Amino acid sequence: MLVEFSILPIGSGSSIGDQIAEVLRIVVASSLPYKINPMGTVVEGEWDEIMKLIKKCHKKVMSSEDRVVTTISIDDRKGKPSRIDAKVKSIERRIGKSLKK
Amino acid sequence: MLVEFSILPIGSGSSIGDQIAEVLRIVVASSLPYKINPMGTVVEGEWDEIMKLIKKCHKKVMSSEDRVVTTISIDDRKGKPSRIDAKVKSIERRIGKSLKK
Amino acid sequence: MLVEFSILPIGSGSSIGDQIAEVLRIVVASSLPYKINPMGTVVEGEWDEIMKLIKKCHKKVMSSEDRVVTTISIDDRKGKPSRIDAKVKSIERRIGKSLKK
Amino acid sequence: MLVEFSILPIGSGSSIGDQIAEVLRIVVASSLPYKINPMGTVVEGEWDEIMKLIKKCHKKVMSSEDRVVTTISIDDRKGKPSRIDAKVKSIERRIGKSLKK
Repeated sequence: MLVEFSILPIGSGSSIGDQIAEVLRIVVASSLPYKINPMGTVVEGEWDEIMKLIKKCHKKVMSSEDRVVTTISIDDRKGKPSRIDAKVKSIERRIGKSLKK
Repeated sequence: MLVEFSILPIGSGSSIGDQIAEVLRIVVASSLPYKINPMGTVVEGEWDEIMKLIKKCHKKVMSSEDRVVTTISIDDRKGKPSRIDAKVKSIERRIGKSLKK
Repeated sequence: MLVEFSILPIGSGSSIGDQIAEVLRIVVASSLPYKINPMGTVVEGEWDEIMKLIKKCHKKVMSSEDRVVTTISIDDRKGKPSRIDAKVKSIERRIGKSLKK
Repeated sequence: MLVEFSILPIGSGSSIGDQIAEVLRIVVASSLPYKINPMGTVVEGEWDEIMKLIKKCHKKVMSSEDRVVTTISIDDRKGKPSRIDAKVKSIERRIGKSLKK
């Protein structure tokens, strides 16, 4: 399944880049397929390995914050592995042109 | 922590009440504190017990669908248990009137 | 259509009840049907009136904050007005018992 | 402000690529800065122009569907224009390596 998540520390100032960098270090180390975008990170895998990863990221940020809001969107489709690249490509094929990523 | 989730079967028609009823049966049986609203269900508890519940609900709906989109929002705040009732009450106290639930 | 939204000020401390109370005052004054829950507010109406309300709430919080994250979920269904009460009732009817709200 | 949105037709089958391609044609034609990812589309601009775009996309999909669920996440930060590229770059700078997009 494909999962996008974002982790938002509340209350430690409007600049949260250092905490997000910590999260991305954990994502990269997980070796799950991932893609970062300006609003979140998309990973692909099975329920347990993805939730273990997101819990680790959330707890890491929570360790230095009083409040953290984490949002998770799951798109689970039978018989469709390897969609992290295929979804955007299938839209590009339909439109007949390359899109900005 | 407080968690709102919603589970959306894609592709089996625009009426999804039967699947949502299945999900609520699982939530009620879990004995976690919960509240249902027109757009989702809020539960309160610890990470592992809540994620176990949501996985069970998601897998139940996925068992009869080809595609399911599940959305999860987590609000985790140190030293603040029992917020499922307290959050709305604290807003009502500030406004000085009862709000519709 | 039914719309749930939440407005989250980032960076002014982990207690955000005063800003949320401001938002609810605007919602109540709008006279749109609404329901508050521990994670957000659900309103019912047409696209333009709802988006005008959410913009007003977002701008209000933004007026005293450096950063605000607002999340909006829209459930739009043809020929189904007045769903803010009906959705939960239809689930209760299927389950055969009253649910916590 | 930065806004990620996704538009999900419910009830017309689990393959929704044709409707998403329609949405992306509208996004590209809008000339707002955008980036597509496997779970949604991020655009940058002011409130009114972005909401006008998302309304147009939502109404387009709704014109051929009975039910559509649209999700919108807004990250609004004072004095920070042009973040659609800058946010990811600032994370890469902190980590000291290029990330997958």
